[in-house]
Amino acid sequence: MIFTTKLKIRFGHVDPAGIVFYPRYFEFFNTVIEEWCEHALGAGFNRMHNEFGYTLPMVNAECAFIAPTTLGETLVARLSLSKMGNSSIHVGIELLGEDLLVRIRAKLVLVLMDLESRRAIPLTESLRELMGPYLNEVDGR
Amino acid sequence: MIFTTKLKIRFGHVDPAGIVFYPRYFEFFNTVIEEWCEHALGAGFNRMHNEFGYTLPMVNAECAFIAPTTLGETLVARLSLSKMGNSSIHVGIELLGEDLLVRIRAKLVLVLMDLESRRAIPLTESLRELMGPYLNEVDGR
Amino acid sequence: MIFTTKLKIRFGHVDPAGIVFYPRYFEFFNTVIEEWCEHALGAGFNRMHNEFGYTLPMVNAECAFIAPTTLGETLVARLSLSKMGNSSIHVGIELLGEDLLVRIRAKLVLVLMDLESRRAIPLTESLRELMGPYLNEVDGR
Amino acid sequence: MIFTTKLKIRFGHVDPAGIVFYPRYFEFFNTVIEEWCEHALGAGFNRMHNEFGYTLPMVNAECAFIAPTTLGETLVARLSLSKMGNSSIHVGIELLGEDLLVRIRAKLVLVLMDLESRRAIPLTESLRELMGPYLNEVDGR
Repeated sequence: MIFTTKLKIRFGHVDPAGIVFYPRYFEFFNTVIEEWCEHALGAGFNRMHNEFGYTLPMVNAECAFIAPTTLGETLVARLSLSKMGNSSIHVGIELLGEDLLVRIRAKLVLVLMDLESRRAIPLTESLRELMGPYLNEVDGR
Repeated sequence: MIFTTKLKIRFGHVDPAGIVFYPRYFEFFNTVIEEWCEHALGAGFNRMHNEFGYTLPMVNAECAFIAPTTLGETLVARLSLSKMGNSSIHVGIELLGEDLLVRIRAKLVLVLMDLESRRAIPLTESLRELMGPYLNEVDGR
Repeated sequence: MIFTTKLKIRFGHVDPAGIVFYPRYFEFFNTVIEEWCEHALGAGFNRMHNEFGYTLPMVNAECAFIAPTTLGETLVARLSLSKMGNSSIHVGIELLGEDLLVRIRAKLVLVLMDLESRRAIPLTESLRELMGPYLNEVDGR
Repeated sequence: MIFTTKLKIRFGHVDPAGIVFYPRYFEFFNTVIEEWCEHALGAGFNRMHNEFGYTLPMVNAECAFIAPTTLGETLVARLSLSKMGNSSIHVGIELLGEDLLVRIRAKLVLVLMDLESRRAIPLTESLRELMGPYLNEVDGR
């Protein structure tokens, strides 16, 4: 399974050269991960923090900026997992234009962390079950 | 008529005190105005800039922050006009919680400006017709 | 007394029309207030939150955008107070270009608030003494 | 040679978990690169765009988030080059805490691009000379 959502490029995302200012892509990645948590894993960041007491910080990011995106475009975001470790997940996110060509390809490593102790904790069995379908073993990305 | 849209509060909008960082509200206002231009006036900021050669900068803003908003909430934005001048419009934006209580109330003055000369230009007849229904004379806000 | 600091306009502050995206000015206002707290009042936002347990949220903002600012410019920010209430302060901030012409003029109302109860609390005697010299009664802005 | 600058962590950089929201690091990288261009290469982004007609977009980013950073801290940024290609440069940026421990380590690939044609162009001889001293062959990062 691949989690899919859309992102609309707004005036505030675009730089003087007329294209998306690249740090905005990392804000988009965070939005995509938040939506995935909310819709696919059953708890948005708010409940994760306040009810479960854990957070999902990024420890590593790799990102290829393949083609620029301009004001007014709508990007399709596709999220899948390439690996589930003990407490970490490897998240692949692709952003595609309406032409379905890949504009951005990112691999992000997130770690489940206890909000109080700020230490990594093992992925719970419940999270493993909910995340499992998004693991794309063939791709290996 | 009142133009209505929704805004989802994301992790990146929220400050260390757990509430929306207030400059983000001004990004939201810009998003609401962009959506209004696109859906109600027939041209998003992209076409306005690139096809028509004009822009709609803000010259004045007044904003009351009535109640805080937290991570994960969805705000309802309501936009109407309180005045159409020669080249300016007075835009009222209210952001309401899901409880329909007003969180934020803003009055923004925008001016139609030629992108090349950076001078104010009169609102076109076509814009006046499209904007007219959103003018709320009774309210006077 | 007027508190003065400088702001450098970076690529990420500027919009596709080549000028500062206006919500960035509200981020600048926050930076100016943070620096004023740190340098003039003896405690940055970090100590205010973590040691003293209070915060200084904005409850009202008025801002005139008088002239645009472009990439690479350095603005001079000038902060003074026009009023000290029981728990609120009225902060005037002007941003000037290197030509010393005013680009932005803002009046911001901040309230001292207990971080735990989220209720307004009276300005402490110590804060009144530190803030006093920045109160500019003549100007009345 | 290593280009060094400082970054102050402001309220608007910090997330509800009390640490820097990671997309802000990419804004910091852009600021560090802008300052390097201005102070070491003799032309800030403004002159690069408007006088020379070229831009320096990012085509690839790798970033390790080694330790979190909190409100009020000042980070030291260190920039050096690990490679100069025909039209690309590999830029290493480290952000260190006041304890001099590395918080963030990034490798960014930038390409010199003609602003009009949006095509990569060879690094000019003058840029090579100015960038040369920052090339750190031993490190090989």
